[in-house]
Amino acid sequence: MRLAELSERSGVPTATIKYYLRERLLPPGTRVTATQSEYGEEHLRRLRLVRALIQVGRMPVATAREVLAATDDETLDQNTRLGAAVWALPHGPEPDEDDPATAAARRQVDALLERLEWHHCRRYGATSPAYGMLIAAVASLARLGYPHETDHLLLHARLASELSVADLDLVETYETPSERIEAAVALTVLYEPVFQSLRRLAQTEESNRRYGRE
Amino acid sequence: MRLAELSERSGVPTATIKYYLRERLLPPGTRVTATQSEYGEEHLRRLRLVRALIQVGRMPVATAREVLAATDDETLDQNTRLGAAVWALPHGPEPDEDDPATAAARRQVDALLERLEWHHCRRYGATSPAYGMLIAAVASLARLGYPHETDHLLLHARLASELSVADLDLVETYETPSERIEAAVALTVLYEPVFQSLRRLAQTEESNRRYGRE
Repeated sequence: MRLAELSERSGVPTATIKYYLRERLLPPGTRVTATQSEYGEEHLRRLRLVRALIQVGRMPVATAREVLAATDDETLDQNTRLGAAVWALPHGPEPDEDDPATAAARRQVDALLERLEWHHCRRYGATSPAYGMLIAAVASLARLGYPHETDHLLLHARLASELSVADLDLVETYETPSERIEAAVALTVLYEPVFQSLRRLAQTEESNRRYGRE
Repeated sequence: MRLAELSERSGVPTATIKYYLRERLLPPGTRVTATQSEYGEEHLRRLRLVRALIQVGRMPVATAREVLAATDDETLDQNTRLGAAVWALPHGPEPDEDDPATAAARRQVDALLERLEWHHCRRYGATSPAYGMLIAAVASLARLGYPHETDHLLLHARLASELSVADLDLVETYETPSERIEAAVALTVLYEPVFQSLRRLAQTEESNRRYGRE
C-alpha cells in the first residue's frame, strides 16, 4: 500500500508517519518511484505499536526506539526478546542505595521471589528495572512507616501472576514470533492504565459498600 | 516536638519541612516562642503522606494540595472524603470525544460495570477521572486493533476488586477516620508501583516458563 492508504488504515496522519520514518521508529518502505514507497502489513502493525508506546505510554522517542530495537533483535530467542523489550519500557525511580531502607527492602523482595518460586527473576532479576522499581516501592513504604508485610505483597504477586498468564494466552493468539513480541509489548503498555483505573474504581466501590450511606 | 525532632523522626530534612509549611502542604505548628513551634503526631503522619504524594507519586505541589484538601474536608463523610481524595490523584489522559472509538468504549465500559454490579461507579462514575481513564484506555486498544474483549477486562476488574478488598482491610487497621483516609490515599499511591513492577516480573517469569531454554 502507499502512504495515503497506510495513513487511512492506521488512522495516523501522513505527516506523523513521515516523522516516525525520519526518526527510524518505522522501517522504510520499498521504493517504487523517486517519490513513492510501498508499505506492507508489517508497517501497519509496527505503526500501531509505535502509537501505543508514544501516544498511550507517553514515551520519549529515544525510549520508544530502544523498546523497538529490543523487539526486533532477531539474534535473540523469543523469550529474551520479550524480556529485553519489557526491560526497555519506562519504569519508576531506581532504589536509593544510600538509604538503609533499601537494603532491607532488597532482602524482603528476594525472600518474596524465593517464596513465589520465581526462579528466573531470582537469577536474572538483579539487573531488571522492574526488580529495582519493586525494591524502591517497598523501601518507600517502609521508610514512610506504612504496612508492607510480605503477605500483602504476596497477594499482589499472586494476582499479577494470574494476570500475566491471561496476558500471555492473549499474546499466543498471534501467529508469528515477531507479531507475538510486538503484541506483548503493546498489551503491557495498553493494559497498565486499564488495571490502574479499574483498581481505583474498585476501591471506590468497595469503600462505598463499607462506609457509604446507600 | 520541635522541628529538629520532626525532621529526625520523619527522615525529612528541616529545609524541606519548612518548604512544605510555606506551601501549606503541612499545617502550621503551635507557636511557642517567636521563632519556635511545637509539632504533634498528626504533623508526622501528614509529612509521611506528603512524601508519598510528592516523592513517590511525583505529583506537582498544586496537585498534592488538592488531594490533601479533599482528605481534610470534614464537611464530607468518610466514604466521600476518600473518594474525593482518590479523584484528585493524577490520572491518565481524558477520553477524546471526537474519536468514534470513544463512544464504543464508553458503551463497553458501562456494560462491564453493569455486569460487575458496581452500581456506585455506574451511578456516580461519569465524572470520575478513573472512569475517563478506563474509557480512554479501552478506546486506545480498539483504535489500535488490539484485543479488548469484555471477558479480558472482567478478569482485570475481578483481580482489581480482590486487591481493593485487601487494601481496605489494611486501611481498617488505622484507628481514626482521618488516619484511615490518609492511609488509604498513601497506600493507593505507594502500592501502584508495587503492582506494576510485580506484573512485569510475573510476565518475565511466565514468558520464561513457556518459551525459555532452561
